[in-house]
Amino acid sequence: MTDFQRPRGTRDFPPEEMEQRRIVEDGLRKVARSFNFGEVMTPTFENTELFVAKSGPGIIDEIYAFKDKGDREISLRPELTAAVMRYYVKELHTRPKPLKLYYMGNCFRYERPQKGRYREFWQFGAEIIGAPSLEADAEVLALAYYCAVGSGAVVTDIRIGHLGVMKALFEKAQIGDDLQADIRRYLDKKDFDGLDAFFAEKGLSPETLGTLTELVNLHGNRNILDKAQELMGGDCADIVYLKDLARRLNSYGIQDSQYSIDLGVARGLDYYTGMVFEIDAAGLGAESQICGGGAYSLSETFGGQQIFSTGFAFGFDRLILARSSDEEIIPKLDIYFIPISDDARLKCLELATELRKAGVSADIDLLGRKVGKAFGYADTIGARTAIVIGDKELAEKKVNVKDMATGDQTPVEFSRLLDHYQNK
Amino acid sequence: MTDFQRPRGTRDFPPEEMEQRRIVEDGLRKVARSFNFGEVMTPTFENTELFVAKSGPGIIDEIYAFKDKGDREISLRPELTAAVMRYYVKELHTRPKPLKLYYMGNCFRYERPQKGRYREFWQFGAEIIGAPSLEADAEVLALAYYCAVGSGAVVTDIRIGHLGVMKALFEKAQIGDDLQADIRRYLDKKDFDGLDAFFAEKGLSPETLGTLTELVNLHGNRNILDKAQELMGGDCADIVYLKDLARRLNSYGIQDSQYSIDLGVARGLDYYTGMVFEIDAAGLGAESQICGGGAYSLSETFGGQQIFSTGFAFGFDRLILARSSDEEIIPKLDIYFIPISDDARLKCLELATELRKAGVSADIDLLGRKVGKAFGYADTIGARTAIVIGDKELAEKKVNVKDMATGDQTPVEFSRLLDHYQNK
Repeated sequence: MTDFQRPRGTRDFPPEEMEQRRIVEDGLRKVARSFNFGEVMTPTFENTELFVAKSGPGIIDEIYAFKDKGDREISLRPELTAAVMRYYVKELHTRPKPLKLYYMGNCFRYERPQKGRYREFWQFGAEIIGAPSLEADAEVLALAYYCAVGSGAVVTDIRIGHLGVMKALFEKAQIGDDLQADIRRYLDKKDFDGLDAFFAEKGLSPETLGTLTELVNLHGNRNILDKAQELMGGDCADIVYLKDLARRLNSYGIQDSQYSIDLGVARGLDYYTGMVFEIDAAGLGAESQICGGGAYSLSETFGGQQIFSTGFAFGFDRLILARSSDEEIIPKLDIYFIPISDDARLKCLELATELRKAGVSADIDLLGRKVGKAFGYADTIGARTAIVIGDKELAEKKVNVKDMATGDQTPVEFSRLLDHYQNK
Repeated sequence: MTDFQRPRGTRDFPPEEMEQRRIVEDGLRKVARSFNFGEVMTPTFENTELFVAKSGPGIIDEIYAFKDKGDREISLRPELTAAVMRYYVKELHTRPKPLKLYYMGNCFRYERPQKGRYREFWQFGAEIIGAPSLEADAEVLALAYYCAVGSGAVVTDIRIGHLGVMKALFEKAQIGDDLQADIRRYLDKKDFDGLDAFFAEKGLSPETLGTLTELVNLHGNRNILDKAQELMGGDCADIVYLKDLARRLNSYGIQDSQYSIDLGVARGLDYYTGMVFEIDAAGLGAESQICGGGAYSLSETFGGQQIFSTGFAFGFDRLILARSSDEEIIPKLDIYFIPISDDARLKCLELATELRKAGVSADIDLLGRKVGKAFGYADTIGARTAIVIGDKELAEKKVNVKDMATGDQTPVEFSRLLDHYQNK
């Protein structure tokens, strides 16, 4: 007989994990709404060309790309931003600016499964499209921070950089765009040996390499911006920009101790244009990053007009891991009914229905278990209280509500049962 | 330049539709929790053999089936029950019975797109696994009904049948299982001409066809069960079963006027074994069904032990359509801040942050629009109130809260602003 397996690298989620995931999702959603971001959703698969346009043809090796029955090249989405920008270019671009959008969805990558890396995973992200950089950058940073907090993560650092600082240095040294992109990839991987070799190979100035290395190793409080300005010869506008940004973060309730300036944040992707940031959380070990984002320019890649955009994405599965594991989230059942006769069963159904309509969670023995076994089951599934109903209870129109933790019994009339649970 | 299109037959959802979808989803979730059903989630794709085992090899033509890079046959799921039963057989079967599970997810089918039929669509479903039929059937019916109501649909009928009644008739007439399955498919499509021809072709008794036709055309209140019992010669246990079920529905607060007995409900699928039902809602035109379900046996198909299961699935997109369209659901913004100086901007950020933390939705002009234009934008995005802050407001530590609907202005001190919004 066939042994039906879950596909490799994927997961099934039991109720106790789903409960936790929904709590985190609700936390993110609540924060996004309070910032007046509106949710959008795009299809789970897209025409493959969309992802190639964003990330180059190499992406095909890393994603679920296939032909549909009409011979169209489609792919399961590896991330959500490309589709949102496609949606913006085709339809949303006529809406009043700025557009503040958020989204949450499953993404897919084809890679060897390993600890904490799955072939289906979830992202939560947001974008502001069509607002000039400083105010939008600050708003997006604040949203990302409060989303992390709202999801239950303990944020240890918000590392903020600006690609314009490096770019100014490269331009002074007359290093072209292609080489700049290569250099950013070395920096994103923190591969300084590789960077040394690359500078040597391309015959780039060792002095520029020295300044660059100093620059990207600048990581600390906002005071390092003065040091950076010195390194740049005192005329870098993007350093002034970061100072203005820092001032706004304070107004957003994000203190100087809660973020850092890190001019080494390079993000590996070519479409970032200005401010970039990453958020780290406690409890995740060496790989502590839960979020990355920044200002970018993608609309024109998908046929739209160039427009200032800034956004971020959280790895939702990492957010789940980042929650304090001390916190116990067991779905608790308010009340478990145990009928011991047919008439009592009908009464249980009536009472349960009344309670459920009011949002009280109620369950009923469906197996006709004996009272002792039914209590055992109620305990197993985490019921807070249990009620046995038999002929005596029907005659007296009254039950004993048993507290499953203490064993205490409280007599309550049928007609007062809803009150009893609502006022608990 | 490439024109980046959304894949054929799929949809993008703007914020106002997502708001509506989340409201419906939350309604379903709340009801499922009140019934003590726990949520599970399974992968978006499965090994293709899973769907073939459930529905036969013909299913491959109707789904997104493809080979992954490891040459494994995988498919985007066309429905959710098969995966949940796989999960049950492989992992959840050791949990205490009954298992009450619900789930919501996207499903895919490869077919010509047409009005209201999409290649990616959503289902919401629930199952009780491992409880004997009557109590579980009643509980699942009640859950389905209250989910429909909780989602905002106006339920016009719950049509309840039982495959055992037909089966008893077939067995009396010595019609084998294969022919029974064929007959059920004609009935599910209400193809009575086809059924006549089929009976003639297979040489089956015209008398049986006559009784069958009378039986499946019985549709009305529970009193038709007496008529059905007559037709069956007075000894059909499954008709008695339906009477017991009806009695339970009353206890669940579902009155006789709210459901009907319809012995013609055949469900097109072979794994249904007993009680079957369909729910109709208002506002959907000719195709009024929003939910189908019943008792089934699938665990053994996936290598598990046979176990009584009963469940249902809602077409989530149909539930959205079934909501009264009179109801206006525009995401409303509580407050829109308009700063008219740099210092005022920082104060707006502070005030907005305080409000947002308390769950009040607040937005701030990010474009530095002039006051008149900013009010226009606030109106466009549906802000309930707007506040202008300039030097005067900073000096007096006080703002005028403008009601966008009436134009009324209310003076409120900075320190009282949160109070003002929380007590509205």
